[in-house]
Amino acid sequence: MKISRFFISTQKDDPADADVRSQALMLRAGMIKKHAAGLYSYLPLGLRSIRKVEAIVREEMNRAGAIELLMPVVQPAELWQETGRLDQFGPELLRIKDRHDRDFVIQPTSEEVVTDLVRSEVRSWRQLPLNFYHIQTKFRDERRPRFGVMRAREFTMKDAYSFDRDFEAAQISYRVMFDAYVRIFQRFGFEFRAVAADSGAIGGSLSHEFHVIADTGEDAIAYCEGSDFAANIEKAEALPLIAARAAPTQTLQKTPTPGAAKCEDVATLLGIPLQQTLKSVVLAVDGDKPGQAATIVLLLVRGDHAVNEVKVSKLAGLASTRMATEAEIVATFGTPPGYLGPIGTVHPVRVIADRTVANMSDFVVGANAVDFHYTGVNWGRDLPEPEVADIRNVQAGDPSPDGKGVLSICRGIEVGHVFYLGTKYSAAMGATFLDDKGKSQTLEMGCYGIGITRILGACIEQNHDAKGMIWPDAIAPFTAVICPIGYDRSEAVRQAADALYAELIAAGVDVALDDRGERPGVMLGDWELIGVPHRMVISDRGLAAGTVEYQHRRESAPTVLPLAEASAQLQARLQR
Amino acid sequence: MKISRFFISTQKDDPADADVRSQALMLRAGMIKKHAAGLYSYLPLGLRSIRKVEAIVREEMNRAGAIELLMPVVQPAELWQETGRLDQFGPELLRIKDRHDRDFVIQPTSEEVVTDLVRSEVRSWRQLPLNFYHIQTKFRDERRPRFGVMRAREFTMKDAYSFDRDFEAAQISYRVMFDAYVRIFQRFGFEFRAVAADSGAIGGSLSHEFHVIADTGEDAIAYCEGSDFAANIEKAEALPLIAARAAPTQTLQKTPTPGAAKCEDVATLLGIPLQQTLKSVVLAVDGDKPGQAATIVLLLVRGDHAVNEVKVSKLAGLASTRMATEAEIVATFGTPPGYLGPIGTVHPVRVIADRTVANMSDFVVGANAVDFHYTGVNWGRDLPEPEVADIRNVQAGDPSPDGKGVLSICRGIEVGHVFYLGTKYSAAMGATFLDDKGKSQTLEMGCYGIGITRILGACIEQNHDAKGMIWPDAIAPFTAVICPIGYDRSEAVRQAADALYAELIAAGVDVALDDRGERPGVMLGDWELIGVPHRMVISDRGLAAGTVEYQHRRESAPTVLPLAEASAQLQARLQR
Repeated sequence: MKISRFFISTQKDDPADADVRSQALMLRAGMIKKHAAGLYSYLPLGLRSIRKVEAIVREEMNRAGAIELLMPVVQPAELWQETGRLDQFGPELLRIKDRHDRDFVIQPTSEEVVTDLVRSEVRSWRQLPLNFYHIQTKFRDERRPRFGVMRAREFTMKDAYSFDRDFEAAQISYRVMFDAYVRIFQRFGFEFRAVAADSGAIGGSLSHEFHVIADTGEDAIAYCEGSDFAANIEKAEALPLIAARAAPTQTLQKTPTPGAAKCEDVATLLGIPLQQTLKSVVLAVDGDKPGQAATIVLLLVRGDHAVNEVKVSKLAGLASTRMATEAEIVATFGTPPGYLGPIGTVHPVRVIADRTVANMSDFVVGANAVDFHYTGVNWGRDLPEPEVADIRNVQAGDPSPDGKGVLSICRGIEVGHVFYLGTKYSAAMGATFLDDKGKSQTLEMGCYGIGITRILGACIEQNHDAKGMIWPDAIAPFTAVICPIGYDRSEAVRQAADALYAELIAAGVDVALDDRGERPGVMLGDWELIGVPHRMVISDRGLAAGTVEYQHRRESAPTVLPLAEASAQLQARLQR
Repeated sequence: MKISRFFISTQKDDPADADVRSQALMLRAGMIKKHAAGLYSYLPLGLRSIRKVEAIVREEMNRAGAIELLMPVVQPAELWQETGRLDQFGPELLRIKDRHDRDFVIQPTSEEVVTDLVRSEVRSWRQLPLNFYHIQTKFRDERRPRFGVMRAREFTMKDAYSFDRDFEAAQISYRVMFDAYVRIFQRFGFEFRAVAADSGAIGGSLSHEFHVIADTGEDAIAYCEGSDFAANIEKAEALPLIAARAAPTQTLQKTPTPGAAKCEDVATLLGIPLQQTLKSVVLAVDGDKPGQAATIVLLLVRGDHAVNEVKVSKLAGLASTRMATEAEIVATFGTPPGYLGPIGTVHPVRVIADRTVANMSDFVVGANAVDFHYTGVNWGRDLPEPEVADIRNVQAGDPSPDGKGVLSICRGIEVGHVFYLGTKYSAAMGATFLDDKGKSQTLEMGCYGIGITRILGACIEQNHDAKGMIWPDAIAPFTAVICPIGYDRSEAVRQAADALYAELIAAGVDVALDDRGERPGVMLGDWELIGVPHRMVISDRGLAAGTVEYQHRRESAPTVLPLAEASAQLQARLQR
């Protein structure tokens, strides 16, 4: 591409309203233009990267046997009523009425439409397995759109939906997609992790998220260096840190701890390790009937641990909880928050101890009296054995649940997600097939998403420096750029640049030639900002010595190459 | 593509609710699936053709210097307010509110968004000319969606927008797009015409429509075999069919014409040519003030001609007219409809004669009395000279306005449209640039659309027979198909089919191998319905003689080819 025939529009400074680096850089480099909160145009430079992302996704989906189709953006609300999602979905689902006052939605995903399609088109087990995907515009009416293209309202997603005859076949389809996703993110050149994920609201019981590792990521991921284990911290299993409970060595004592409401303060005051203290978290579960008092639940985790709300929500009776009010706490524990504990409550309380807590001896916990803790507390002796569950977040250094080492924690940006859905949608919508015995069966489904436009933001969060973006070869807007110094005034420079450009184009390299005639500082700054990975600078001075300067965007200094070898050497680098 | 890895879903019979052949055939062949009125999924077969259409459009747009970007489907209503289109657009514009009760629209076109983008990105004449396009989902909330994908509510359109420094430059951009469109429709293999079009509501004064010729087309097109002239009948200029008015030879007579209210009946009754009679059409123009009486207008065209409402609407004072009511007619003409004319009205009437009528002598027209006409009527002598204008549709046989022959009429389906917009949008939205003298100027714009999904329907309307669709090579879902008889039971057939398939794939031919093992009748019927242009049948009987059968979808019988030459001969045919 000759840049004089293209459209480049860079800005010198960061825009005022960008909330992450990727957004600031994309706006500055002219990859996107914002029209309203969460609504962007992709300018020519941005679209080039999107098209490369789409092409790789399409190739790997096709290779994995998925079949592309195209489902509509505007979808009849009746289909969403069949699955109940019309009511379940919050205000993120944009609902519209047409001129005849009929209800429609703008798709955030396409489970209903693809199931509608399959229930009318698929009759027999002979047609299975099937996996349909499309790459299409989605809309989620985020309350607070932010992080640029990573949490935009309108975005492009690849969503695939598998249909299988039974659970075993569905597991194979899931695995095939999982493997395709690994190939896709490898081809992008990302540092990423596939993590076991909480399956959240979409349903189903088996799911993995694919995260691009970046310090600015919204999600915390626990992973094991010594194995494949990786899980969203919401789901990573926390093993007990104490293998077996030791026998008591201390007596129970109500000990003054004036002003030490927090575990850290108690440990300091008493001169004991923080790991010897317990943290009390009080939740309330509202009754079904109006006026019925809430049930109070006391969660106990070690002083250096944090409660994991997602894990708690999966325990029996705790699907929907809230923090207890001060009034509820006083009524139940006889004291305001700060020195709460399981011993001597006014009313009986459901006590749930984390697995580590359950194996502790001689521990310290609030005494339900202001400025007092119990020390030397022991289960069974001083209070009843608790209900035990995994209710805490894992931490760096915890043992990996697979027994193959210890966990590290990193942050990630979710760019892909694979779900096993089971029959959630197919049962609700009556999507069945006749099995090999002629019996009607409900289709087993899976769904598989990749945020196409989000990929760009995540890639930049992982790959940038003070000068701008640094694209991996596979999805750079251009793979290489030729920067001629004085293209508009030196015949030698123009000829050498045109010749190198022609040679690289003929070799199939996606190369740009900056023939705008900009000043060298502006030109080189533009391409550093845009982050094209490979750059060749051609100047009169270099040509006098028969050389050009090659520099990778990650390198701090150029390499001088003989002009005659420039094309071959760049191609060799691209092969690697 | 091996069809066992693809998805084919054909039906034996036409669906009940299809209103045109293309829709019936696309549904039967499994190219589309209907989810609601005007809302379709494109199944894998349909999407293949769409992608080929898109690829050709993209290639020619790029070649013409247009630059691809991607603008959002959901657009802020404020932008549409700036140009006034938010109010002007009827209920076809789908308006939505987001969760914060802000107004948005789903784009039917993108003039506002692209102008918003350009006014913030373009500063200088040095950046011009610019032409941005995108291929994106559009929505028009049609009152009565019909004709399948040709008048769907959601559809894919390529829309391009040019920005120029002045009128002359804008005309060049327009011509470049016009030429690109000609290449695009030639590459599709369509019989088409570029016709001068009424520019309708989008604005601007220069526009052409590109029509695929088909008997089922919604639009009538007048064209000249002897020249390039072609125009939508709404706009084609009707020359006077009589060069100069002859002197009167008859006297004015009030002649009884009992029961003959229509021109045809009058001509028969009086034994005169229909071309000697005048047809009266009475319109009313409502006054600006409430209670003000409407102005009555009498249009006169020759008995064999039809009034052209679009032409009438462009005459002074007639932008907004309606048919006059019977009460208004009686009040003005003293008689009910049926025998109306310009002579002896109760109140003065604005009389507008078509150019041909203005040159007639001794003609026949209603006498404003039931069962009576005047014969031997002559302008100037019997009634005042009329206002003269081109107010009729051209007919087959009329002289071409360019003087190069006579007109023919055909029907067409509009698939593309080029408009010169001038400064309609740029002035409203303040899209300016600094010219080479540093002066701020308003950008000159053009817009250029191609209905990507509509192309499929139009193609089928032009290319089908009783058995199904007949695709041109360029946009067929598959260019060729290999149909092996007994693929699942004959080793020889399987080997020969696989080998031919591999050879054609290696040669870059988009070939399908039907390895489903269907019965021959079903298999061949499917591919005739789907309309893949080139077919090779491989059977044990043919292989025994070392041959395969080739047949083009338009041919009535196969050609026997040596197996060894099959690939080369097919490739030779595709070259042509």
